[in-house]
Amino acid sequence: MRIPEGDSYERHICDDCGVIHYQNPKIIVGCLPVYGDQVLLCKRAIEPRLGYWTLPAGFMENGETTQQGALRETWEEAQAKPVIDDLYTLFNLPHISQVYMFYLARLSEPEFAAGDESLEVKLFNEDAIPWDNLAFPVVNETLKYYFGDRKVGEYPIRVCDIERRPRKKS
Amino acid sequence: MRIPEGDSYERHICDDCGVIHYQNPKIIVGCLPVYGDQVLLCKRAIEPRLGYWTLPAGFMENGETTQQGALRETWEEAQAKPVIDDLYTLFNLPHISQVYMFYLARLSEPEFAAGDESLEVKLFNEDAIPWDNLAFPVVNETLKYYFGDRKVGEYPIRVCDIERRPRKKS
Repeated sequence: MRIPEGDSYERHICDDCGVIHYQNPKIIVGCLPVYGDQVLLCKRAIEPRLGYWTLPAGFMENGETTQQGALRETWEEAQAKPVIDDLYTLFNLPHISQVYMFYLARLSEPEFAAGDESLEVKLFNEDAIPWDNLAFPVVNETLKYYFGDRKVGEYPIRVCDIERRPRKKS
Repeated sequence: MRIPEGDSYERHICDDCGVIHYQNPKIIVGCLPVYGDQVLLCKRAIEPRLGYWTLPAGFMENGETTQQGALRETWEEAQAKPVIDDLYTLFNLPHISQVYMFYLARLSEPEFAAGDESLEVKLFNEDAIPWDNLAFPVVNETLKYYFGDRKVGEYPIRVCDIERRPRKKS
C-alpha cells in the first residue's frame, strides 16, 4: 500500500511490476419488476441473507449498461424478462463502498421461475409483502417508495444514503 | 483468467492464493456548478484531453457517497464548494466500463481556482461555452441538457448511453 505519484490515496501497488490495483466502489443494478398490481420478489438461495426476499439485482459487469446489467440479473435470478422503464432508486452505501440502482420494470406476462441463486420467485400484492423477511434495506426502501408513489401515480427518482445495515430482530 | 465456481464470467484469479480480482465498472462522479446564469468549467491540465474544458469530475473512491465524491472532485479540480441539488445526468459508457453521474450544484459565491489537475477554471455564460473544445461527450451532453432544461425551468434526470467517443476534428 502506497500513494502513487500525483494521487492522494493509498493504493495496492505490485512491488514487482508497478501495476496499481485501484479499489473503487462497486455498482449493484436491479429491477423492480411489476405485473399489474403485483411486484416480483426472489427468495435468496445464497448468502448473505439466504432465505430472505429480495428484488433481482447483482454486481454490474464490465461492458454492459446499467439497464443491461439490471435485466441480466433479473433473468439470472428470476428467469423473467421485463421491459425497463425509468431509473427509480439510487442508494449510496459508503460503509461497504457500493452504489445500488433499481429500475422500474414491467412484466407483460407472469412468466418467471427460480434461477440458480433463488429458492423461489413469486408475485406479491402490497398487503402480502414479507416486510419482516426482506433481505436488504435497499429492498425495503425501494418497495416503500414504490407503494407510496403508486398512490400518487408519479415515480420520481430517489437518491438516498444508507449508512449501515440496521440489525434485524432475531 | 478462469471462471470461479458458481460464477458465469472469467475473472483474474491468483494461482498462488486463490484470490479473485473482480473487474467491475467504475463510477465517475462530478458536478455541474452553477453561479447565477453561468456554469463553471475546468481546463484540463492532465491527459486525456489536456487543454480541453470539462466539468469537475473524477473516479469515486471507496467509503464515500456519490455526492461526497462529486464535491471532493469539484474541490480538487476547481477549488469550489457548491451546494449539491439533484442528480441530473447518468451516462452508461459500456465500451470503457464506466458510469458517469453529474449532480446539479449551486455556487453561492464566485469562489474558485485551478486545482492541480486544471490549467484554468472559469465561469461561462451559455453563449460563451467552448463547444468545440469540450473534453468529453458526457460534458457536452450534460451542458446541452442543462441549457435546454433551463428554458423550461425543470431539470429531470437524464439516463443515457454513450456507446463510443466520437472522433473530434483536428
